[in-house]
Amino acid sequence: MLILAVLARRTKLGNKHTGLSGLLSPVNFLDHTQHKGLAVAVFGVLLCKLWGLVISPNPLPFTTDSQDKQNWMILGVFYYPALYYPLLACGTLHNKVGYVLGSLLSWTHFGVLVWQKIDCPKTPLIHKHYSLFSSLPQIACLAFLSFQYPLLLFKGLKGTEKNNATEDLSSSYYKEYVKKVLKKKFAALLQCCVCLLASLRLHHGTSQPVGLLLIMIVVPSLQTARLGVNEDIANVLAGFKIMLSPDKQEVVRIVVYYIWCVEVSYISAMTLSGLVNLAMLMRSMVLHRSNLKGLYRGDIYNVYNCQRSIRASRPALVCWMGYTSFSAAHICIGMIVQTMVFFLCLLIVIFLIIIPVLHRQNLILFQILWSMWPFWLMIILAVLIQHITARFCFIKKIGGTKDLNNRGNLFLLTYLLFPVNVLIGVLLALWRIIITALFNIVHMGRMDISLLNRNVEAFDPAYRCYAHYLKIEVNQSHPVMKAFCGMLLQSMGQENNATQRSRDAEEGIQLVQQEKKHHKVSSAKRAHGHWQLLYTLVNNPSLVSTRKHFQHQTTESFLNGSLKRSTKERSIKEAEAAGSN
Amino acid sequence: MLILAVLARRTKLGNKHTGLSGLLSPVNFLDHTQHKGLAVAVFGVLLCKLWGLVISPNPLPFTTDSQDKQNWMILGVFYYPALYYPLLACGTLHNKVGYVLGSLLSWTHFGVLVWQKIDCPKTPLIHKHYSLFSSLPQIACLAFLSFQYPLLLFKGLKGTEKNNATEDLSSSYYKEYVKKVLKKKFAALLQCCVCLLASLRLHHGTSQPVGLLLIMIVVPSLQTARLGVNEDIANVLAGFKIMLSPDKQEVVRIVVYYIWCVEVSYISAMTLSGLVNLAMLMRSMVLHRSNLKGLYRGDIYNVYNCQRSIRASRPALVCWMGYTSFSAAHICIGMIVQTMVFFLCLLIVIFLIIIPVLHRQNLILFQILWSMWPFWLMIILAVLIQHITARFCFIKKIGGTKDLNNRGNLFLLTYLLFPVNVLIGVLLALWRIIITALFNIVHMGRMDISLLNRNVEAFDPAYRCYAHYLKIEVNQSHPVMKAFCGMLLQSMGQENNATQRSRDAEEGIQLVQQEKKHHKVSSAKRAHGHWQLLYTLVNNPSLVSTRKHFQHQTTESFLNGSLKRSTKERSIKEAEAAGSN
Repeated sequence: MLILAVLARRTKLGNKHTGLSGLLSPVNFLDHTQHKGLAVAVFGVLLCKLWGLVISPNPLPFTTDSQDKQNWMILGVFYYPALYYPLLACGTLHNKVGYVLGSLLSWTHFGVLVWQKIDCPKTPLIHKHYSLFSSLPQIACLAFLSFQYPLLLFKGLKGTEKNNATEDLSSSYYKEYVKKVLKKKFAALLQCCVCLLASLRLHHGTSQPVGLLLIMIVVPSLQTARLGVNEDIANVLAGFKIMLSPDKQEVVRIVVYYIWCVEVSYISAMTLSGLVNLAMLMRSMVLHRSNLKGLYRGDIYNVYNCQRSIRASRPALVCWMGYTSFSAAHICIGMIVQTMVFFLCLLIVIFLIIIPVLHRQNLILFQILWSMWPFWLMIILAVLIQHITARFCFIKKIGGTKDLNNRGNLFLLTYLLFPVNVLIGVLLALWRIIITALFNIVHMGRMDISLLNRNVEAFDPAYRCYAHYLKIEVNQSHPVMKAFCGMLLQSMGQENNATQRSRDAEEGIQLVQQEKKHHKVSSAKRAHGHWQLLYTLVNNPSLVSTRKHFQHQTTESFLNGSLKRSTKERSIKEAEAAGSN
Repeated sequence: MLILAVLARRTKLGNKHTGLSGLLSPVNFLDHTQHKGLAVAVFGVLLCKLWGLVISPNPLPFTTDSQDKQNWMILGVFYYPALYYPLLACGTLHNKVGYVLGSLLSWTHFGVLVWQKIDCPKTPLIHKHYSLFSSLPQIACLAFLSFQYPLLLFKGLKGTEKNNATEDLSSSYYKEYVKKVLKKKFAALLQCCVCLLASLRLHHGTSQPVGLLLIMIVVPSLQTARLGVNEDIANVLAGFKIMLSPDKQEVVRIVVYYIWCVEVSYISAMTLSGLVNLAMLMRSMVLHRSNLKGLYRGDIYNVYNCQRSIRASRPALVCWMGYTSFSAAHICIGMIVQTMVFFLCLLIVIFLIIIPVLHRQNLILFQILWSMWPFWLMIILAVLIQHITARFCFIKKIGGTKDLNNRGNLFLLTYLLFPVNVLIGVLLALWRIIITALFNIVHMGRMDISLLNRNVEAFDPAYRCYAHYLKIEVNQSHPVMKAFCGMLLQSMGQENNATQRSRDAEEGIQLVQQEKKHHKVSSAKRAHGHWQLLYTLVNNPSLVSTRKHFQHQTTESFLNGSLKRSTKERSIKEAEAAGSN
């Protein structure tokens, strides 16, 4: 019934709408001025639903048999985006009718979900309250929508809302941005706050369901086990020849205590992994911002570590389409892996270090380490000797520069310490394994850095995808280009009374082309303009692709020449060549 | 008795020797012209002995109780380098007496070891032939020494051997090298062959004991288990509710076959890991060569990915001293980890793929994958749709450049495919985990690449050590500097009848200084010389530290200024600044 009603509403909505093309393009993902709250909320709901699809035995509300779960799931993957599409589409109308419909729709969804959960909060799945808890993020997203639509309606009624149709180019965002860049005063603190808020929201949407599931799967069963421990456990343990204590009551107490420790370490691992992911997401946003800024400047070598053309291409577009989904999936998988690893580490720490230290018994690890004290002493002494002799015997400082001294003794010491250094090398290799594993596990959820060595970065599929995504982002939304197009449109509007405004950058460029043919400027001004254009393009090679096809052939070839010469790799190679000659 | 004899020989040797300082400096590790065969052989013997120390219960030949194994081991770590030191020291005398003694000593060592092994080839340790096999690399190294010393003696008798005392600087190696660099014609193929041989020898020394131990620990017990399988195994398996076959004879046959499979996969994993390590070692040598060449050119930014000063410092010297030992340890640990991981992978492949396919039963993996065909079809279709639409609908090509088209439909498709893309993202994340783990495990033994992301490379302890090692190598053995010093020494020798030749670079520089004061050159020639010097130093900043202190103050400050300006990072930053303005 719900679906039918929604579908009916949707067709009704389609009929009432004046511009169908606007309705079919839900949200302009390449426009950085639009308020993306609605889109983020709907994506959050979709993610929760997808999670539900994977977990629950009945993926769709109208199915009762869990026989063909897989097929129903595949259907659901396409059904839910269609179901929640009207929620997003109502916002694209940019008029009061759309906002009223959006408010009604979001209230309905919200009301139905809340009523459903109040009606039967307990389900037999995983944990009795799992269904209730797992729908919390979904309820939050729908509540946000239910609040946002009336707010937009209210703004529309008061007339304070700007005309959204030409929002992208006519808004002062890009002009302000360019001005700020030129002034070199960035509101860094404000941006940090924005990053924090955005990452908190994204984190909330993606990691809460995962975290909840991880907790719900393990913790209740541990709790049940803890409550169910009785004196039989002593016999069972005696069967495995484990004697914790002669008193059976004491054994029960110890086992309950141990299970409680496992529970605590599991929840700590969960929390830690959540916090790590949040921190990573924030760092990721900061890095993304700095990457964008670097690429806007044309600083391709520093961002990609090699020379690349920033152009729209097939793989780049495919990666751009999937980027949001991929990063959500990476955060989920990363969180699961992190929780498992942190849990294991915490277990080792608790059972080998903390509990033995607290109870002053079973200090196995400490006993092993203590019995090896001559070995540790030898290692420490060898390292110290090398450092001290290196500092005081083998390096002499003359006239501000350092050089080697006593080479004979240096070679002798190197030879004599060879076997000890092999042992130190083994410790170093173990440390390397730990460091590498920890770093990669912590950064598993970040797509914007490669987990591989700098020479083979592109083999990391996630980083490859991010690199492509960045290309499209930079190519399609360069703030200088957008500000320029916006200014041209404004000036044209003042001259021509602005009847044919367009809302898109590509159309803006088309207009610029028409504009150029019609108007005449003095030759001095034209030369000045050419010179400025040239300078801009030399420093921002990514802009060329958007304008090349309407430039004169001569200017173009000259530009290409100077562009090639201006790239950094080229200059570095020249410097190398000069060096080797 | 053996040790006393060796010690006696050693003191005898010390008395007979004329220059004690030469005897105490076993081998000039910074001289690339010396034949390092002797040193490599002695280091190989030491490594084998160290391995024996760790494994055997009686680390030293004169201990019989395995009570205080640790203390004996620590003693052994310092005892063996002293024991084999005379073998190396005989080569440093560079005269016939030294070679005769060296021949005698190496024959004695070789003879004693071979006789010992022939006398009692079987030991109760790990495997009856383990002791024999494990001493093979040691015997090979000693045989090499026993052959090398008489060869040197023979050369010395025939007078074909060059005067080794001034070998380093007076040899034509550096002059040839510099000539080759200037001609830009490198004997690349020959170098590859040299690399291959060197890495084979190193690989043989380090990885054979590890491989042998890995095989000896597992394979004999598996063989014993295989031969010991009888019909009781059917009852044992039935206890675990595993029914392989109703016929007991058939069960025995299957179990034997499975154990044989495990054995084969273990040996394959071992071999694979050995080959991988050999390949890595070769790549490592090639990379080291190119790094050295890059740094000789002053191309610091490309090698280190940041600007660094190539100077001798305390940490750099410590890392240089330990580098050979550390890389041996890393190869060992890397091989152990690789064998375990490859073994697990091969087991999975054999028992889940190959055996089921061969026997057409228990095709569990294939059944699971087959039952998920709608899911795979959906994934493939979603990927295909995105690629095809991106190619034909969303990218338009105008005038040689590509731009986006149909933005509305692009955003709609992105929204609708969001849940499917999350599922694709999960697969991508799993693929990322596999790729990253495999890459890091394969490259575990290589110290010359960092296993971490390019921004945090220095956190990898092994790479940090290599970076420091490279500094000392480049700083102390720049071929242009050595060729220059060699030529100066030669010219001085022709003038002054060469009585006070020195064999070291630092002394060569001192001589240059004296030389300069005595001779007068025309001012034009002097200016020309200054200019050439300046040019060389600007392009090779690492040379400055070796000559700065005897230059005039004015030239020095000028040099520093131009040096700073010439660094690449500087120029890049300037380019950036120009771009952002």
